[in-house]
Amino acid sequence: MNRIVMKFGGSSVATTDKIKDVARLIAKKRDMGHGVVVVVSAMGKTTNGLIELANQLTAEPSPREMDLLLSTGEMVSVSLLAMCLQEMGYKAMSMTGFQAGMRTSAQHMKARIDRVEKERLENAVRNGYIVCVAGFQGMDENGDITTLGRGGSDTSAVALAAALDGSCEIYTDVKGIYTVDPRVRPSARKLDRLSYQETMEMANLGAKVIEPRSVELAWKYNVPLYIALNTGDVPGTRILGEEYLVEKNTITNISKVDGVLLVSMKGNNGNGKKVTECFLKLAQANANLDIISHSIDAQGVGITSFTGLSSDQHAIERILEEMGMEYRFTENVSKVSIIGNAMRNQVGVAAKAFEVFVNQEVTFYEVSTSEISISYVVDTQDAIKIVNALADEFGL
Amino acid sequence: MNRIVMKFGGSSVATTDKIKDVARLIAKKRDMGHGVVVVVSAMGKTTNGLIELANQLTAEPSPREMDLLLSTGEMVSVSLLAMCLQEMGYKAMSMTGFQAGMRTSAQHMKARIDRVEKERLENAVRNGYIVCVAGFQGMDENGDITTLGRGGSDTSAVALAAALDGSCEIYTDVKGIYTVDPRVRPSARKLDRLSYQETMEMANLGAKVIEPRSVELAWKYNVPLYIALNTGDVPGTRILGEEYLVEKNTITNISKVDGVLLVSMKGNNGNGKKVTECFLKLAQANANLDIISHSIDAQGVGITSFTGLSSDQHAIERILEEMGMEYRFTENVSKVSIIGNAMRNQVGVAAKAFEVFVNQEVTFYEVSTSEISISYVVDTQDAIKIVNALADEFGL
Repeated sequence: MNRIVMKFGGSSVATTDKIKDVARLIAKKRDMGHGVVVVVSAMGKTTNGLIELANQLTAEPSPREMDLLLSTGEMVSVSLLAMCLQEMGYKAMSMTGFQAGMRTSAQHMKARIDRVEKERLENAVRNGYIVCVAGFQGMDENGDITTLGRGGSDTSAVALAAALDGSCEIYTDVKGIYTVDPRVRPSARKLDRLSYQETMEMANLGAKVIEPRSVELAWKYNVPLYIALNTGDVPGTRILGEEYLVEKNTITNISKVDGVLLVSMKGNNGNGKKVTECFLKLAQANANLDIISHSIDAQGVGITSFTGLSSDQHAIERILEEMGMEYRFTENVSKVSIIGNAMRNQVGVAAKAFEVFVNQEVTFYEVSTSEISISYVVDTQDAIKIVNALADEFGL
Repeated sequence: MNRIVMKFGGSSVATTDKIKDVARLIAKKRDMGHGVVVVVSAMGKTTNGLIELANQLTAEPSPREMDLLLSTGEMVSVSLLAMCLQEMGYKAMSMTGFQAGMRTSAQHMKARIDRVEKERLENAVRNGYIVCVAGFQGMDENGDITTLGRGGSDTSAVALAAALDGSCEIYTDVKGIYTVDPRVRPSARKLDRLSYQETMEMANLGAKVIEPRSVELAWKYNVPLYIALNTGDVPGTRILGEEYLVEKNTITNISKVDGVLLVSMKGNNGNGKKVTECFLKLAQANANLDIISHSIDAQGVGITSFTGLSSDQHAIERILEEMGMEYRFTENVSKVSIIGNAMRNQVGVAAKAFEVFVNQEVTFYEVSTSEISISYVVDTQDAIKIVNALADEFGL
């Protein structure tokens, strides 16, 4: 019996009627003979409601207490879903994160999964139970409940699929992964297949469909991923290792992230010490830096540029002032990225892209490349135009 | 450092403002140097809300799933209370039932406490933490979450006090235990002290202040109990072993329970077999029987009477019909009980009470005695009158 871990987010189980819809989709999968484990998030806005209660009591809730508080949301979802499946005549049972064997580090609110002690889960699946597991949570070695932080339920689902040697299906409110965000380019194509690496790159470069952390885990354990609409009636996107990809696309995706701030600093000549100190301070202030480049200008003065988030502008400004840096901000810029698994095997992608920028009369401030992506920093007012022009050029 | 387990019900923690009030009362106790453990119930109507969600999905939710669902209510309360105490500058931490070591039987929704594995709790208290423990819940040997059923949080609190060799203070919305329900007799006196046995008898005979189960446990382990208003500013009632009671009251309490049904059955002559079978069937149907008496009438026919609840009338009727019994119902009756620890050492309580019934021209259908109580079955329309006349007679 092959095992499938199905994951549903909070909006898919927001009401008891939606729980019934989800239960029907799960039952259909079980009827096909699969061993089924379901990972669910807290119902709808439950988590926000719990955070609001905590905020009424303290501005800085203890992470350990927050974890117990927030973990209850998923426990409610799984017990209700199990009842619903039982009412439909299926063998079903709930498991909290710790009952499903999720052992984590003790870093509350951002715990890492150390291991899955899968015996109980494995037995239940083997005995024909649909097991509904509370996502996003685990237990540390002190016996305290932890949560996994951002993207936690996706990560739970992938970890359980890895433990059970199964596949993982993530049901969401979008139909899959697209060549370009359909809100930016309505004619964008849904991708049938993608590699882990491409998906990671996309997730890191701003696509919101899936958290990079869960893709990384799936990649590491070679867990086949499937992302689809939570109605189950539209084919979604499969994410696999490259060896399973029959067709290797040159370019699979164009991503766009707005709200970027471009910063250029004049560094001390040939001395990176002050610049390094700046980066350390920015990291301490939790300012997220992205594309970093360094060059020497005609006068032999070192210029260091980086991109950050517009929302961090005040923090960045404060630190650069404190350090006595000479700097310049370029505001209202966006990052546009071209991603493709087979880019490394192809020549001319950068050249083709460059031609598009010239033809569109769009200039870019920075460019950064990885093995399978190229990212450009452009004025936000030019971003949608260049995304569509690039998508046209690469047939997306 | 002596240990005090303070217990607060759902209405005492219904809002974050009420949680703050409760936290101040707890802090005051800690400031006095006591080791403090707090047991709380779910906030306000949370439990009812969760039951309602379950009912939207199934008419017969699985007890195991119900237990996980309901246990979340107390987890929310304890994490919020711990945060609130921390915000006030106190060392505090939450514990779920299982973290506090509550090991129970596997009977979901009505689990019994097998033992308290107190090491973690003990350590935390010794290290100066105020420990906020989720009441009403524990864990069975399968690692499943259980709930203790009715009166569960009181029972949790007493069990923890027993494990820590401490005392237990139950804070509620009444000022303590009264000689007579103040709604029936506004001039009733609050009792300063009571024995376990008297309290048990009162709880069993219908007083709603505390569940018999928790009193029984306190009695067994000799845990001093204190029942008081949740504002903490009015002295409540202490419940102790008889050896600690300086003053032994003759009569401490008059209780009244309405909604009683009196049933009389003609039994087969000198043959209790059919009657016994009736009682077995009634027990299977969960009909709560109370005062049972048997006598032989002038014709030598056995008459068996018992009291039940009016709400069980249909079930009782169905069973007696099935069994072909000859029976009679007396509806709208109440049970009035006189309770006193020292009754066994006194003569004439029954005689005095009888005189009161004669003077008030109230007749009773049944009478039943225990070592420290006498219960009468009377018409409900006479009940308040006789309660007050008895209270006058016995100076309550």
